[in-house]
Amino acid sequence: MRNRTIITGEDYFTSLRGRKLQVYLMGERVAEPLDHVLIRPSVNAMAKTYELAIEEPELATAQSPFTGKRINRFLHIAANAEEVVMQNRMQRRLGQLTGTCFQRCVGMDAINALFSVTYEIDEKNGTPYHARLKEFIREMQEANFVIGGAMTDIKGDRSKSPSAQVDPDLFVHVARRTKEGVYIRGAKAHQTGCINSHWLVVMPTMRLATEESEYAIVGAMPVDAAGITYIIGRQPGDTRLVDGGEIDAGNAKFSGQEALVIFDDVFIPNQYVFMNGETEFAAMLVERFTSFHRRSYVCKAGVGDVLIGAAATVAEYNGVEKAAHIREKLVEMSLLNETIYATGMASSFESHATSSGNYQCDSLLANVCKQQVTRITYELARLAQDLAGGLLVTLPSEADYRSPATGHLLEKYLKGREDIPTENRMRILRLIENLTLGRNAAGYLTESLHGAGSPQAQRIQIQRQMDLEYKQQLAKKLAGIES
Amino acid sequence: MRNRTIITGEDYFTSLRGRKLQVYLMGERVAEPLDHVLIRPSVNAMAKTYELAIEEPELATAQSPFTGKRINRFLHIAANAEEVVMQNRMQRRLGQLTGTCFQRCVGMDAINALFSVTYEIDEKNGTPYHARLKEFIREMQEANFVIGGAMTDIKGDRSKSPSAQVDPDLFVHVARRTKEGVYIRGAKAHQTGCINSHWLVVMPTMRLATEESEYAIVGAMPVDAAGITYIIGRQPGDTRLVDGGEIDAGNAKFSGQEALVIFDDVFIPNQYVFMNGETEFAAMLVERFTSFHRRSYVCKAGVGDVLIGAAATVAEYNGVEKAAHIREKLVEMSLLNETIYATGMASSFESHATSSGNYQCDSLLANVCKQQVTRITYELARLAQDLAGGLLVTLPSEADYRSPATGHLLEKYLKGREDIPTENRMRILRLIENLTLGRNAAGYLTESLHGAGSPQAQRIQIQRQMDLEYKQQLAKKLAGIES
Amino acid sequence: MRNRTIITGEDYFTSLRGRKLQVYLMGERVAEPLDHVLIRPSVNAMAKTYELAIEEPELATAQSPFTGKRINRFLHIAANAEEVVMQNRMQRRLGQLTGTCFQRCVGMDAINALFSVTYEIDEKNGTPYHARLKEFIREMQEANFVIGGAMTDIKGDRSKSPSAQVDPDLFVHVARRTKEGVYIRGAKAHQTGCINSHWLVVMPTMRLATEESEYAIVGAMPVDAAGITYIIGRQPGDTRLVDGGEIDAGNAKFSGQEALVIFDDVFIPNQYVFMNGETEFAAMLVERFTSFHRRSYVCKAGVGDVLIGAAATVAEYNGVEKAAHIREKLVEMSLLNETIYATGMASSFESHATSSGNYQCDSLLANVCKQQVTRITYELARLAQDLAGGLLVTLPSEADYRSPATGHLLEKYLKGREDIPTENRMRILRLIENLTLGRNAAGYLTESLHGAGSPQAQRIQIQRQMDLEYKQQLAKKLAGIES
Amino acid sequence: MRNRTIITGEDYFTSLRGRKLQVYLMGERVAEPLDHVLIRPSVNAMAKTYELAIEEPELATAQSPFTGKRINRFLHIAANAEEVVMQNRMQRRLGQLTGTCFQRCVGMDAINALFSVTYEIDEKNGTPYHARLKEFIREMQEANFVIGGAMTDIKGDRSKSPSAQVDPDLFVHVARRTKEGVYIRGAKAHQTGCINSHWLVVMPTMRLATEESEYAIVGAMPVDAAGITYIIGRQPGDTRLVDGGEIDAGNAKFSGQEALVIFDDVFIPNQYVFMNGETEFAAMLVERFTSFHRRSYVCKAGVGDVLIGAAATVAEYNGVEKAAHIREKLVEMSLLNETIYATGMASSFESHATSSGNYQCDSLLANVCKQQVTRITYELARLAQDLAGGLLVTLPSEADYRSPATGHLLEKYLKGREDIPTENRMRILRLIENLTLGRNAAGYLTESLHGAGSPQAQRIQIQRQMDLEYKQQLAKKLAGIES
Repeated sequence: MRNRTIITGEDYFTSLRGRKLQVYLMGERVAEPLDHVLIRPSVNAMAKTYELAIEEPELATAQSPFTGKRINRFLHIAANAEEVVMQNRMQRRLGQLTGTCFQRCVGMDAINALFSVTYEIDEKNGTPYHARLKEFIREMQEANFVIGGAMTDIKGDRSKSPSAQVDPDLFVHVARRTKEGVYIRGAKAHQTGCINSHWLVVMPTMRLATEESEYAIVGAMPVDAAGITYIIGRQPGDTRLVDGGEIDAGNAKFSGQEALVIFDDVFIPNQYVFMNGETEFAAMLVERFTSFHRRSYVCKAGVGDVLIGAAATVAEYNGVEKAAHIREKLVEMSLLNETIYATGMASSFESHATSSGNYQCDSLLANVCKQQVTRITYELARLAQDLAGGLLVTLPSEADYRSPATGHLLEKYLKGREDIPTENRMRILRLIENLTLGRNAAGYLTESLHGAGSPQAQRIQIQRQMDLEYKQQLAKKLAGIES
Repeated sequence: MRNRTIITGEDYFTSLRGRKLQVYLMGERVAEPLDHVLIRPSVNAMAKTYELAIEEPELATAQSPFTGKRINRFLHIAANAEEVVMQNRMQRRLGQLTGTCFQRCVGMDAINALFSVTYEIDEKNGTPYHARLKEFIREMQEANFVIGGAMTDIKGDRSKSPSAQVDPDLFVHVARRTKEGVYIRGAKAHQTGCINSHWLVVMPTMRLATEESEYAIVGAMPVDAAGITYIIGRQPGDTRLVDGGEIDAGNAKFSGQEALVIFDDVFIPNQYVFMNGETEFAAMLVERFTSFHRRSYVCKAGVGDVLIGAAATVAEYNGVEKAAHIREKLVEMSLLNETIYATGMASSFESHATSSGNYQCDSLLANVCKQQVTRITYELARLAQDLAGGLLVTLPSEADYRSPATGHLLEKYLKGREDIPTENRMRILRLIENLTLGRNAAGYLTESLHGAGSPQAQRIQIQRQMDLEYKQQLAKKLAGIES
Repeated sequence: MRNRTIITGEDYFTSLRGRKLQVYLMGERVAEPLDHVLIRPSVNAMAKTYELAIEEPELATAQSPFTGKRINRFLHIAANAEEVVMQNRMQRRLGQLTGTCFQRCVGMDAINALFSVTYEIDEKNGTPYHARLKEFIREMQEANFVIGGAMTDIKGDRSKSPSAQVDPDLFVHVARRTKEGVYIRGAKAHQTGCINSHWLVVMPTMRLATEESEYAIVGAMPVDAAGITYIIGRQPGDTRLVDGGEIDAGNAKFSGQEALVIFDDVFIPNQYVFMNGETEFAAMLVERFTSFHRRSYVCKAGVGDVLIGAAATVAEYNGVEKAAHIREKLVEMSLLNETIYATGMASSFESHATSSGNYQCDSLLANVCKQQVTRITYELARLAQDLAGGLLVTLPSEADYRSPATGHLLEKYLKGREDIPTENRMRILRLIENLTLGRNAAGYLTESLHGAGSPQAQRIQIQRQMDLEYKQQLAKKLAGIES
Repeated sequence: MRNRTIITGEDYFTSLRGRKLQVYLMGERVAEPLDHVLIRPSVNAMAKTYELAIEEPELATAQSPFTGKRINRFLHIAANAEEVVMQNRMQRRLGQLTGTCFQRCVGMDAINALFSVTYEIDEKNGTPYHARLKEFIREMQEANFVIGGAMTDIKGDRSKSPSAQVDPDLFVHVARRTKEGVYIRGAKAHQTGCINSHWLVVMPTMRLATEESEYAIVGAMPVDAAGITYIIGRQPGDTRLVDGGEIDAGNAKFSGQEALVIFDDVFIPNQYVFMNGETEFAAMLVERFTSFHRRSYVCKAGVGDVLIGAAATVAEYNGVEKAAHIREKLVEMSLLNETIYATGMASSFESHATSSGNYQCDSLLANVCKQQVTRITYELARLAQDLAGGLLVTLPSEADYRSPATGHLLEKYLKGREDIPTENRMRILRLIENLTLGRNAAGYLTESLHGAGSPQAQRIQIQRQMDLEYKQQLAKKLAGIES
């Protein structure tokens, strides 16, 4: 890819243009994703990660030990707890600025997890993964590339392990090994921001058995490597932008992006291979990555800030912002939203050093954070819809508002408070629709449930770490029971 | 309108064709609503109320004392508690069959509430409303027409009463009175199924002050009366049907319908006027209507049955239906769904006779039912999304599935359990999307919040009826406190 | 036992006096339970079931087809849905009057369940159980006796079935069979009101395997039959009455009662044996009994009325009853309390005839009711404590209030609103403590969890009856999936 | 008081003996609180704060800049965020070790809040409070005394402000000012650990109006100052210890303590006066103190650890610990318990420097923590009772278990799993009763609601700090609304 460091959002757009990606959407090959009306908002969201680094460098950049320069924080390996915490601060801010998923966390969490795991593999086996990874990270930092992290396999019949599936490709695996590298096959589902990335890092999705060594593969490749196909998924209300106008889209500028990525014998040269058959480290990688990634859902507190702000605004536009029950609901929304923030932040604050020297967030609290996110965002959505009123789902289209036949009627009858333009009321309602029933509900709600692992995955981790034995000792002692 | 009794769904479609309605949608005048791809599913849902009367007459018809014939239950005045209960049974069934709002309850609840209120106005004032209403009902029963009930005013600045608004039209009111009748002005928002109705009954939306007599108007008119304009609202994901194919629409056949209805000096002749200035009866009408209508939300238990069925199916398709946590979630969904049903049914079972002789459901329990609906449907939606998995919002389009370029890839990689066609898995996911983030989420979620009054409206009613004084006496007696 | 019909509460007290019961409490044999300060409140509560029959005969009596007389409703076999419903109305009323468990429902639910089950056993096997049961019921009705129903076995290691326990006595079983009858051994736990009963009916506690026929025993015996020992359990704050005064007790007059009942080869003559080895009917009996008993928890809505009344009173005494957040909490309490009532009532309203002719409540809704009770009572307790303020657990004793050294200080400083006597404020606080942390919390909270089966038991029943297959068909039809 | 530094628990007991306190409990003057069976467990809990400082000095001591020595952390002024965090770690640990309220936090939070407030008063007014306070703190550190913080006034009619009460003494106020100091009158309610303290610091309880300057008083006095009377409140199940044995008490060794403290013209010399009439600083003090104190409720996560351990143990004793629904409930308990911990810790981690140089925790998150505590502890109590089974409230007394008449029966029939002594099962059940319905439920539940301010107080703070304006700007920007 290009050899100049990407700095501005414009640089980033330029860096994406003209790639030879195999991208499909709504039944058609997409010639230039950057120019596709349904894709562009997700590119805009990613671009914000560059812009924030310029606008608030303390927040969104860090000092790299590898390049000696100030780099984008998304590419930084956190060397102390405060730097892990700063990731969360940056994530909340970007959630506030975009109102959606800005897609760059997966890569950040992946390289931070791989940093310690590769170190520990090498320590045990004498492999060269850690040095390769550091060189890869340095390369990405120099270019300021976006790394997409690809973990979630298709899984097929979920009651069966990778090797027990009828079709071996239902989990990404090594199809062939040569002296120069490996060829991989399979597909990764729900790949966040993959088309907006420059490189992808594939990783195994679960604990593996010893005989499943072909599934224990970690490696990086450019997004336009030969053999990769992308099929972009539909989002609720995705075509609102196509219908014309921008009000109906709610948040016309920003959205998330998720695609199915199919690897048809894609080659990864050795220098970009960071795990190759070490099945016993698959679970460790999954756990460290998901720990980072689950507390990364602090971003949803940022999106929640937008939703709270929208709900407060619509209450004001309706003239009811001072009613006690309205205020109580805004307080409840804030309480819950800050609970997401606090649990994620506590996980980051309680980070500990790994043997490789980087910092890993607290796993129990990370799972607590994510599990709370799976409930809280839905409750916030319900409360926001409560404050919005029924017009949320019965509001006529922008086209009706612009039409000479009906515009004046809507102007007259959709008025709330006298001093508020009807259009503003429409806009704020559409934003709430966007976040709770529309395009960005995909990220704010369903992704909050299933991203970084579905709810039950967090419960299993909590079960592993809740240390009942210790707690039973405490209880027995106070109850006067001798062990 | 036509003079033959409507019997079948086909009859119903015929009865709608060729009317001169002023309907707008997406910025354009709709020539024939029946043929509009976005409107037709809502007509289909209404048609089910005719078809059910043929398929299950015990459930969906009743014996009319006015015509002496078996008539559609939606047009029947309930003469005992069991008949009120039967409304609920019919509503749940129609929710199961359509998976959406079938739109005919408003009219049923309106005429049942008006029946006793007009009787009591006449009793006090010697007015002729009750006889007029009975004749109107007989007429509707003979034709088997759909009655739309129009209550919810636009309201403008909600901190102000009707007469205190800057624009008097923000609440529907009498603009002019003549010897022959009245002319009304204003608009009603969120009018369920109005375009699919034959007649509309307008009613005041709230308690009125004595000086607000021009707002105390109840009357009926054909939907194509001169001066009425309809602007149909957008629903989440409404254009999925337009994109081609039917899978992406989720529930391609059925949907709800809500429109803004504007009355520009619409004439109502005296014979169809059922209240005209009796402000002191406005609150009684609102309370009786909302009591009926709030326990009518038992229909959502029928839609909930569909959602539970879809969630159970997707779990099966994923191969996880036997996992304990999956079963627990389905139990939780059932528990909550039956709580909607039980609270609504209890309200109907506890009906009492009014002085006019018809039966009115229990108001406290009706409000309990509706308030539970405002919470439970959202929790069911969350649980269904939990069981669905992330593919719910990342699933590629039907067009990609049909395309030669990508169809085989999706066939291979979106497979869950070996014996389940990929298409089936896509279909069930799209149905869950439709109900929780798509078109029918408008009815299943947001309408469950705001239909028949927003959550706080129920709480105010509960507050009025919770009879603290009696409960305080019970407590004081047991505490040994002498009054 | 005595041969005069018991009518008044006094008659009832007389009927209890002088029995030869083996009763233990707090380490001592109790000479006359009726006179024991800790037991008497539970006798008072039971006596209310007699008094209500005099005060509100429509509510608390019914016409017996067996005696031809008006009898106490607790001894009546419900012959139509309305009579099942009337049980619930009576239960709520008694909960309101006593603020505790009045203990007579178990017997009512037991004979109503046995009525149809014995009929069906006889139908299949030609046994004489149904006729015996009818005669037993007639006898009880003539005397107006209290029947205690004994189902819950001790269970030992819950991971093991009755026959797999190390000690066979951990489930009540037939130890010996003679021509004249059976001898039973074992123990029943948590037996509600057993010492206040005249007769006990023992029943198996769970589904039994064919080889566990000695556990399939149902029979009746007088409470003072030879071989029975009662050990009364402790309740939270049980000795408040002993400390002197009555304020600290909260509800000094009424309480519940639960004991461990041990059967040491207790003889049951054949005429009182209603099942004897028919293992295949054990599950049916358990299900029918628990269906009745789970919707009997409507009584907790009556206790909830007392708690709501107490909470409203303390708010008034504190001078904050008009604050919006206080009113909202009272509304929430009412909403939840009526949800208990509505779900139980719906189960009763939806009763159906059994082949024996009596009416059985709806099982699914009965389980919904009980499961809601397990959550709602705790939330009501929390809200009541919220309204009470911290004084709930820091209030000095009545003795301090009566003491010359400190009484005037408490009079001065524990005053809330000027016009409310300090003593009243103390009394209402102690009532809330009694219901949420004291003696009647045993019944209102923990028994609401575990009585009539622990929460998971209801979930298992809901799972059995939620009929996923039917719901899946509904969903598939709407999704366009062909079966 | 004594002049030797208190080091061990024994030293602490010695320091309490022989004081001339006016203490009343259950209607009697208490000669020596230390020896009173109902009081001693609360002294034991406080003693743990000394013992932990010896056992885990890193956790429970800190380096004092005032004495230059290692001192008990409860007397330390936190000079950076990490030291604020360490308070939380210590609090959770002490909750684990005592299973109750150990009572020493109030003083810690009071001196930490006063540190910055006195600095800011002096800065504005040139008063000498800060220097006096530092000297007072140094004195306390040298002696290692317990400081009790007395804030909560009696309040009387809560709809009225201090100066509007009928009786001016309903809020503590300055009755008389002399050259040497002030005389205060009034009473403080619910004073945690006051009798176990050496010194008390009184503080105003709310925002004050300018004319309420006599209520703006902060000062310290020895607990045995002339004119102070203590009346200890009753706790649920408080007399379990009196009944004999120790099993029934549940947690026989430890409890909390709360008393009503009456000040009858108590003299405070100037050197111990830290605010005197500066009404405009009352709100600041209340807010800073409650911020510290609300995140101090992290201690409840420690008590929650005990409850979770007890619940897991009883499940094991019942033989059901492997059932999926049991495990799920333990996971849920852990999730919620860690949410308390995480929100409190996040508040501490996010501490900021005040102008006086000490560190103040984040106020918004502190209020989030406390508000979560008001809900979560109740849900944990419900879940623990669910796991315990009904025996929790029907278990016979220890006396029955020790009695020759009934002991063998209980031994036989209360057995759960074969290998677990019946006594152990009884003990763990009693511990759960103690925490959820007994003595320590006062601290774990009701105090979790009302301690450090009732729930609504937190909501008001959250409302003040939720910064809607900023969030509205975010929303408007994304919605395309120009300000």
